[in-house]
Amino acid sequence: MTASTTAPFTADDHRARMERAARTAAGAGLAGLLVAPGPDLVWLTGYAPTATTERLTLLVLVPGQDPVLVVPTLEAPDAAKAVGAPALTLRDWTDGKDPYAATADLLRGAGGPDVSFGISDNAWSLHLLALQKALPTAAYASLTEALPMLRAVKDATELDLLAAAGAAADAAFEEIRSVAFGGRRESEVAADLAALLRRFGHSQVDFTIVASGPNGANPHHEAGDRVIERGDMVVLDFGGLKDGYGSDTSRTVHVGEPTDEERRVHDLVREAQEAGFAAVRPGVACQEVDRAARAVITGAGYGEYFIHRTGHGIGVTTHEPPYMIEGEEQPLVPGMCFSVEPGVYLPGRFGVRIEDIVTVTESGGRRLNDTTRELVTVD
Amino acid sequence: MTASTTAPFTADDHRARMERAARTAAGAGLAGLLVAPGPDLVWLTGYAPTATTERLTLLVLVPGQDPVLVVPTLEAPDAAKAVGAPALTLRDWTDGKDPYAATADLLRGAGGPDVSFGISDNAWSLHLLALQKALPTAAYASLTEALPMLRAVKDATELDLLAAAGAAADAAFEEIRSVAFGGRRESEVAADLAALLRRFGHSQVDFTIVASGPNGANPHHEAGDRVIERGDMVVLDFGGLKDGYGSDTSRTVHVGEPTDEERRVHDLVREAQEAGFAAVRPGVACQEVDRAARAVITGAGYGEYFIHRTGHGIGVTTHEPPYMIEGEEQPLVPGMCFSVEPGVYLPGRFGVRIEDIVTVTESGGRRLNDTTRELVTVD
Repeated sequence: MTASTTAPFTADDHRARMERAARTAAGAGLAGLLVAPGPDLVWLTGYAPTATTERLTLLVLVPGQDPVLVVPTLEAPDAAKAVGAPALTLRDWTDGKDPYAATADLLRGAGGPDVSFGISDNAWSLHLLALQKALPTAAYASLTEALPMLRAVKDATELDLLAAAGAAADAAFEEIRSVAFGGRRESEVAADLAALLRRFGHSQVDFTIVASGPNGANPHHEAGDRVIERGDMVVLDFGGLKDGYGSDTSRTVHVGEPTDEERRVHDLVREAQEAGFAAVRPGVACQEVDRAARAVITGAGYGEYFIHRTGHGIGVTTHEPPYMIEGEEQPLVPGMCFSVEPGVYLPGRFGVRIEDIVTVTESGGRRLNDTTRELVTVD
Repeated sequence: MTASTTAPFTADDHRARMERAARTAAGAGLAGLLVAPGPDLVWLTGYAPTATTERLTLLVLVPGQDPVLVVPTLEAPDAAKAVGAPALTLRDWTDGKDPYAATADLLRGAGGPDVSFGISDNAWSLHLLALQKALPTAAYASLTEALPMLRAVKDATELDLLAAAGAAADAAFEEIRSVAFGGRRESEVAADLAALLRRFGHSQVDFTIVASGPNGANPHHEAGDRVIERGDMVVLDFGGLKDGYGSDTSRTVHVGEPTDEERRVHDLVREAQEAGFAAVRPGVACQEVDRAARAVITGAGYGEYFIHRTGHGIGVTTHEPPYMIEGEEQPLVPGMCFSVEPGVYLPGRFGVRIEDIVTVTESGGRRLNDTTRELVTVD
């Protein structure tokens, strides 16, 4: 889920990111980074190949060397048009040649035989296995494990783009409140949501969850054929990319008047979301955000029904580190952006989730979503 | 590029495919197969998760054991709805648990310590590295390397679906011939093509290449802002998925009357395409199809301008083994389906490509695309 547009950035921005990434890699004891097509490559170079295929495309970042993009000859003209291309040396290869031997040659320049390289999480195993064979003495570590926070701290331009994406998602929510829910299929409301996200500037819609009644108890239910009924709780969770940066927000609405229990569970989740948000400040470990939200729900006796982590990072993807999860001791740093999205899921009955994107400021947290967190009723 | 629809197939079809895959793996000396979300998983189980994420989803096929799908708890309800789910044991895991240790336990049951497993080409390196750490004595091989022909031979139902996808692409070409080319941007014609593919039943459009004039000399040019001019050659290459199976066809058209040279190059490519097609019959090595097409172009002195392989397989993806490329000695087998698509690319001037999907029959080849291969003029 990447964007080809990195419009507000320049070749110098990309050069600086690549230099910083190489430096960070060296600081982490890595001899270099191997970056496959996907969000890391977009962020570092502005280049997003149209399709990810069995043909190797790989950015090789070695501290002290110029960045090299290994790229199929067929795709070299497109790569040369990327915003960051002026900061890259393109090394193209044609069908029938072995790109792994050529890559191994580059890596041999990076140090002794027992070096370690970070490699993109989403690099195909096909490529990793071929590199392991071409350079058997080297070790490899996934980028998220080796440098989990590589893209986590956003600069001012990135924060502006994330805020704009959040505002667009909020605008979509304000509009969806007034469409008909009762009597329509979830998939129809989802289509409305997707159209609204696009209308408010999203170039890519990643998800439009409309989970009504019992479907709401499955946090990953998308939107199906179920006809929404009067009396349903409906979890809405939607987002995508606008100008290359992500949105992701959830609100739970009710068709007509809620019961006392529905209102109570919604209030509980709202309180948990507030507690998670309130825990956000520099230096606090990610897991503390999860703990703060979870404590509220567990304290009310619903702990077993909160069956996922509290949040995930967002940037050039809608789903990335840092994760707000038990065990994640990474301290929060100003500029980090992530979701705070506790939920309660009552099997066979209904679910509630409330989600805002939050960025860490010098003094606490700032929400990038700002629609009401009170229970909204719809028709 | 996979489809969630495998409508004409049953749980028994998927059970049979999984059994056959496990048997084939054993025959190739593998202790089992590890299948990540993507085309292999769709083909084997009918399951296509909405998004591929850092959460491990993995089908474990070990000969003599029931197939197991390791799946995040959040996604288990969707997985349970897959057509092939009745043939699977779902082993779900929740955030915070280690799915690799659980997977390693399954793999330990597959044999001694020094066993090899095949793993999907597109499985994330993140997952492979974690498995290598959890089970350090095992070896891994990419599925395409270990079992390249796993999905290559199509059954009768699959051939029907591929033929229907080809017919739909052909219908799109017949319509696009009559739209205006001259004076419009490539991207506008590409949008027309995409709309036509959808109108004729495609659920997914993978590519709509409209490469006019000098852009045609870049085989991977997609479609851009260039305004198509009278006198341009225009390479059209388009396809996607219809009912879960792929289409992919290319024709090169001319805006107004072509020059003698343009006609000559087009005739040459047509002759090469015909020669590649004529080489198709059971038992012939894939590389012979490439050689047959290439010989025609090389013989006419244009060899250096035919800068890609002659073809690729097609099935639940638009791009898969077998490859018609020098060095591929795999013999053709009835039921295989692949493109035959030679081209000539004259830098800075124009390109020509002609492509049909061809399936191997008992006696030769059968085209699944059937629009004219003569040079068509458009307005």
